[in-house]
Amino acid sequence: MDALAELVGSLPGGVVSTDAATLENYRFDWSRDTGAGTPVAVVRAEDAGQVQTAVRWAAAHGVPVVPRGAGSGLSGGSSAVDGGIVLSLERMRAIEVDGDCQVAVVEPGAFNAEVKTAAREHGLWYPPDPSSYEICSIGGNVATNAGGLCCVKYGVTTDYVLGLDVVLADGRLITLGGKRIKDVAGLSLLKLFVGSEGTLGIVTRAILRLVPLPLPPATLVASFPSVGAAAQAVVAVRRTMRPSMMELMDQASINAVEDHAPRGLDRSAGALLVVQSDAPGEARVAEITTVQAACEAAGATEVVVTDDPEEGEMFVSARRAAFPAVEARGSLLLEDVGAPVPLLPDLLAAVAEIGLRHDVEIPTVAHAGDGNTHPIIVYDAADPASEARARAAFDDILQAAIRLGGTITGEHGVGRTKKSALPDQLGEDVMELSRRIKDALDPAGILNPGAVL
Amino acid sequence: MDALAELVGSLPGGVVSTDAATLENYRFDWSRDTGAGTPVAVVRAEDAGQVQTAVRWAAAHGVPVVPRGAGSGLSGGSSAVDGGIVLSLERMRAIEVDGDCQVAVVEPGAFNAEVKTAAREHGLWYPPDPSSYEICSIGGNVATNAGGLCCVKYGVTTDYVLGLDVVLADGRLITLGGKRIKDVAGLSLLKLFVGSEGTLGIVTRAILRLVPLPLPPATLVASFPSVGAAAQAVVAVRRTMRPSMMELMDQASINAVEDHAPRGLDRSAGALLVVQSDAPGEARVAEITTVQAACEAAGATEVVVTDDPEEGEMFVSARRAAFPAVEARGSLLLEDVGAPVPLLPDLLAAVAEIGLRHDVEIPTVAHAGDGNTHPIIVYDAADPASEARARAAFDDILQAAIRLGGTITGEHGVGRTKKSALPDQLGEDVMELSRRIKDALDPAGILNPGAVL
Repeated sequence: MDALAELVGSLPGGVVSTDAATLENYRFDWSRDTGAGTPVAVVRAEDAGQVQTAVRWAAAHGVPVVPRGAGSGLSGGSSAVDGGIVLSLERMRAIEVDGDCQVAVVEPGAFNAEVKTAAREHGLWYPPDPSSYEICSIGGNVATNAGGLCCVKYGVTTDYVLGLDVVLADGRLITLGGKRIKDVAGLSLLKLFVGSEGTLGIVTRAILRLVPLPLPPATLVASFPSVGAAAQAVVAVRRTMRPSMMELMDQASINAVEDHAPRGLDRSAGALLVVQSDAPGEARVAEITTVQAACEAAGATEVVVTDDPEEGEMFVSARRAAFPAVEARGSLLLEDVGAPVPLLPDLLAAVAEIGLRHDVEIPTVAHAGDGNTHPIIVYDAADPASEARARAAFDDILQAAIRLGGTITGEHGVGRTKKSALPDQLGEDVMELSRRIKDALDPAGILNPGAVL
Repeated sequence: MDALAELVGSLPGGVVSTDAATLENYRFDWSRDTGAGTPVAVVRAEDAGQVQTAVRWAAAHGVPVVPRGAGSGLSGGSSAVDGGIVLSLERMRAIEVDGDCQVAVVEPGAFNAEVKTAAREHGLWYPPDPSSYEICSIGGNVATNAGGLCCVKYGVTTDYVLGLDVVLADGRLITLGGKRIKDVAGLSLLKLFVGSEGTLGIVTRAILRLVPLPLPPATLVASFPSVGAAAQAVVAVRRTMRPSMMELMDQASINAVEDHAPRGLDRSAGALLVVQSDAPGEARVAEITTVQAACEAAGATEVVVTDDPEEGEMFVSARRAAFPAVEARGSLLLEDVGAPVPLLPDLLAAVAEIGLRHDVEIPTVAHAGDGNTHPIIVYDAADPASEARARAAFDDILQAAIRLGGTITGEHGVGRTKKSALPDQLGEDVMELSRRIKDALDPAGILNPGAVL
């Protein structure tokens, strides 16, 4: 392929790979999307100029470009496309903290955890914290507008993006925003690129807002006889306060974690809530007391409170361990559905009903305080009937969320695995408007084709 | 004009006005933009359907549509256009608070203060607080992504917009977002419409996130010998904490307020900082102590601290009174420039130098904690030389902000009065990209033509 030789020749040695093993390694993200294709090349760019070179080449030859960060995506947003290239940002990892401006200037391949560490050295904090924060990249976080556990109080990625460098579909590089905090000059292109899942441009640098470090949290863990009772407690708490974390685990996910990496969780509980407050001093005590009262009123059978951050982190890490723990039980279809918080009990009840109806196991964890849930559908990939039941359940859960005025994805992105349900949520007019914007920014459709739209 | 008769006939009596007095009343916003035209009709829509009817009519006849809220805009974003219609949302004022979801569903004509009041009845709070909150509408707040005094801690309008109904340039009405907190399904059209100043669509309903009521704040007022010393204090404070308010007044604005509505401010001070903390209990004391130490280290000559919210509000209201107070001194050109916080002293020094150089008075107030400043250029409209000097100073201040890596507008919007400097800030590529999006959403260019782009 002459064009491919041109790409190889236009970039330094080692940047473009075309060997079969590398191509195979870059086909999938963590969703293991079965529709993933095989790329013709993997470009591991080392700077923005190389990203521009690769995109210009792709534009000239009409080759699809799938941008990729750490490959930890959960919805097939970086599944490779047959005949396309994978443009990996994994080598662009520089982080520079400007303590006076309280920002971090970050290349897209840097991990979320690395930004947190760099900020901490300046007494600062980058809040967004996907469960995968130790293995996910900032580029991916920006692409999906990633959330996490602390966003119930501190917001999501878009709330922290002050500036972006973006390589457009024609290879131009634009700079949006900067180190200023407030800026309304012109259309909010910055916010449009956040969450666009690589379909409008490729982020090569982000300026992220940092905030002062939070105080060590107090942690409350409450056991409930049922998921519904736990969800009622969440609704009650959210009426009056904003905890800094409010996570839910159902019985199946508790037992998956105990099977996989035991932490002494109560296997008999119908559900656990893990709630934190990082308010200062007596306010923390007051908040935890409020949460405790709400849990007990909703029927909690046991409530444990600790001011010891390490003990608290043990419970939080149990929650974070749910995905890998459930993964040990079979193949997974990961949901990310959300609903208005008062409808959380209805959404969780719908998931349970769908699991029963399709005879599939659906352990569920949730960023409950935001109404954002992660039902995890487990199936046997060797059994086509099992897989078919799982896929039917997956689709039904998306529709249930839409019916409740919710969303098919709260933080993972649409990618390719939830694309079919997007028109049901957005409606024809919004889909058409989205396509007009996609066409305006990427008329040839080379950027992450097949994702989202 | 047959077309106009068609418009009048298609809407209920009293909705469309074409009398000269009404047309004159709707030519200007608060910026008194001298380029404002005269509309052929004013449409005061009573519901979204009437907005659609008016826009469909405008689309059919190629008539410009200038959307208008309360007319309190400060950058000519709703200046009327010759031959166009003004589409006023002032009659659409419904507010419905959903306490369980912690949202307010608001029509665009409702005032910011009315949303705050409605929220408070449910023990909730809508934070964004432009100084004009008692007379500005939510539609205008969304159109400009309005800020205010508390955004140094609580963020700006876009951070609180969960959903929008928008009438597009062809008259279709779309619904974006909803009562769910986290939602990444599809492109962030929601965030694109926020801050688009009526150039992409007309907001007919907003779902606004509410939060629990804040605690009563403690207030610190510090007097400094110079604006530079006060700015240094701001930089020092922002390194370690986030006050809930951090406002600056220079000597000219202090004296303008004392002349206009005396409050006993120190007329001899070179600058005042008004700082609040709404942290709970001992954390509030600790924050105010930190601020006090930073002010004294920066050379504050007097520091007053009060835990009395009413006394604190007296100082804050003095700050809010600066615009009307300065307005009593002459005609005004209002700036809204910002810079990264550490460069606040440089920006304020540049403003002072420009005032001297052009021999114009430029009282300045600032949302100092965000680096967002409001130099207010005073001139004599009866004296062409005075006006010419004021306009030269206005342009120089915009350029100074751009040179410092700042913005020509932090919260008021570009409108028509700052449009000429926008390309200097954004650059050609971002301007071109913005126009592509404008063209995609409003191909005939009927929505607020002449604003922003």
